[in-house]
Amino acid sequence: MREVAVIGVGQSEFGKLPWRSAASLGAEAVRAALDDCGIPAKSIQVAYAARQYDANCTGQGILKEVGVRNIEIINVENACAGGATAFRGVWKEIADGRYDVGIAIGVESMTTSPIAGKLIPPEKDDLEGHLGMTMPGMFAMVARRQMEMGATKEDFALVSVKNHHNGCLNPHAQYKKEFTVGEILNSRMIADPITLLMCCPNTDGAAAAILCSMDMARRYTTTPVKVLGSALCSADYKYTQEDICASPVGVKVAKQAYEMAGVDPKDIDLVEMHDAFANEEILRYEDLMLCRPGEGLALLRSGATAIGGRIPVNPSGGLLALGHPLSASGVRTVCEVVLHLRGQAGARQTPNAKVGLAQMLGGLVTNLEHGATAGIHILGR
Amino acid sequence: MREVAVIGVGQSEFGKLPWRSAASLGAEAVRAALDDCGIPAKSIQVAYAARQYDANCTGQGILKEVGVRNIEIINVENACAGGATAFRGVWKEIADGRYDVGIAIGVESMTTSPIAGKLIPPEKDDLEGHLGMTMPGMFAMVARRQMEMGATKEDFALVSVKNHHNGCLNPHAQYKKEFTVGEILNSRMIADPITLLMCCPNTDGAAAAILCSMDMARRYTTTPVKVLGSALCSADYKYTQEDICASPVGVKVAKQAYEMAGVDPKDIDLVEMHDAFANEEILRYEDLMLCRPGEGLALLRSGATAIGGRIPVNPSGGLLALGHPLSASGVRTVCEVVLHLRGQAGARQTPNAKVGLAQMLGGLVTNLEHGATAGIHILGR
Repeated sequence: MREVAVIGVGQSEFGKLPWRSAASLGAEAVRAALDDCGIPAKSIQVAYAARQYDANCTGQGILKEVGVRNIEIINVENACAGGATAFRGVWKEIADGRYDVGIAIGVESMTTSPIAGKLIPPEKDDLEGHLGMTMPGMFAMVARRQMEMGATKEDFALVSVKNHHNGCLNPHAQYKKEFTVGEILNSRMIADPITLLMCCPNTDGAAAAILCSMDMARRYTTTPVKVLGSALCSADYKYTQEDICASPVGVKVAKQAYEMAGVDPKDIDLVEMHDAFANEEILRYEDLMLCRPGEGLALLRSGATAIGGRIPVNPSGGLLALGHPLSASGVRTVCEVVLHLRGQAGARQTPNAKVGLAQMLGGLVTNLEHGATAGIHILGR
Repeated sequence: MREVAVIGVGQSEFGKLPWRSAASLGAEAVRAALDDCGIPAKSIQVAYAARQYDANCTGQGILKEVGVRNIEIINVENACAGGATAFRGVWKEIADGRYDVGIAIGVESMTTSPIAGKLIPPEKDDLEGHLGMTMPGMFAMVARRQMEMGATKEDFALVSVKNHHNGCLNPHAQYKKEFTVGEILNSRMIADPITLLMCCPNTDGAAAAILCSMDMARRYTTTPVKVLGSALCSADYKYTQEDICASPVGVKVAKQAYEMAGVDPKDIDLVEMHDAFANEEILRYEDLMLCRPGEGLALLRSGATAIGGRIPVNPSGGLLALGHPLSASGVRTVCEVVLHLRGQAGARQTPNAKVGLAQMLGGLVTNLEHGATAGIHILGR
């Protein structure tokens, strides 16, 4: 396998932008990534494009806008892990020597999707979905279990305070507004104990990353970022499972990624991860072995995962404040890690970051028994 | 790159089956493929699953039904070439040595999709789509151009006569009914000169193929079918282009596949291809170099592409009679070629078939400028 580098990253405007097409959002991100590394568009040899809703030759529609033609394009979908799937696809193509330069794109237009402003409709034979088992409902059940184990609503709010603070430092964030624990707890109740400000918003947006072989990378940049580890797996997730808080597939994929990268969790300088609901971030600390099992809460409370802490988590603002255009997020998290490794993350920079981890977790919104997908990439300079 | 074999193929019921979920159709095809080769479900290490409409963790939903858990699943979309994209994805994984055994799945539930019984709605900024430029309209324009070059409506009908005859020999076909040229010409006019019986139907169905390394294949079967060539590319297709009948990307991909396989077009014993509209098949003869440029009509009229002819095309019945569950077709065509190479194609068997070609072409239904994708696999015993 060849060494692969990320040489260009780009992100579109994030927000509620129903007047913009998915193709135009995607093209904005692709242009930003091309500008970032100065590689000509015609150098791109392969593309993976992720989109969940209204996907219809998404990559072709985006790349046409920027004049990339006559290449292999693979459109992928893996719920919130779609972007991680796209990034991994391009990584494989280059690592295996099939192509030298490729682009991973993630895009979602949530406000124009069939679920805009609605709960996601359950599938025909999805009894729980029809009875109201939606994403917020499921994460609320998880939160209740966390509370039995010692967490408080204030802990969940603290994650949201942190990530909204981080969003204020990110020009790309959908929400740049500080909130207090009290404001978060007093926002509208969605599914007890989860309040509105503990939920990620609906977001339109796109992200893109250009990858190439390490040999070639040095032609385009003095700061190539290496893909040290890549892992992706799908597994059943059931809210009827013994420990509703556990994500066995998340742990499995983390171990695979660390092993491949040859790094220890304590070597990680920053993490971007799936924080669709505030309480989730605390559980993922443990899956990613940023702390010992059962110590996620203590890690949060210690301030270690804030910017300036030992291991900043979601310095971008995360899904909670930066926004969550589903399939874009798995590419966007990689973009954020790359900026930190290059020292280009501005006010939210992780000092002297050498190794970063981008995680994404995706599952069906209802009928979660269909499975959840965890995708992790470890990047280093 | 390692040699890769197809060891198991399976197909679900094809037809208008709105009472069946995509997951159940997919699981039926997967079970048939598993039964075909006798490999245990738990041997599957990676899956690519293609679906265009309502895609939402399609592979996870299907594989859960058959007890395949904890593997890497990549859901793909590439319009009608989605199945070819899935098959190629699994081929790459095994050829590159990442995994030893994988499954490609294609599924579509057209009758429960958002476009069921409707024309596909044009995208927001798609002027031509809003003005009525639908798939039948576009292929009718192509047919008109073919008629200027010497084709007749009877020629188009002849393709449909041939493929409906073939469908009568295929237990899996949606339509098992012979039609005469007159019946086809007198069926309802859809977009002059294309009549109803020159259009592929809406179909629900799924197909699956199990691939593994050639070394391993010999453990499971005495008749492994080799993947000799694989190629896939997307390119712009415009009905405003100089020659509306040409598919430059189709020709490019055919050349790539032949070169990789190291076979000459004259070595091909049978072809399964995209015949969404009857007139299209004639053009594709030339793209695939089954005859010289300009000689597609003569090839059809000679009877060479009928069962029993020099180079049977769509012995399965093709999309016209077997049916066209969009994303399934690119896997299904491979399944059909495999059956012929094994000598298991029953009444429609190509005698002594040694090398077969499965082609699929996919594009956006409206706004075709987004591009068309051609995917070709050449298989041999």
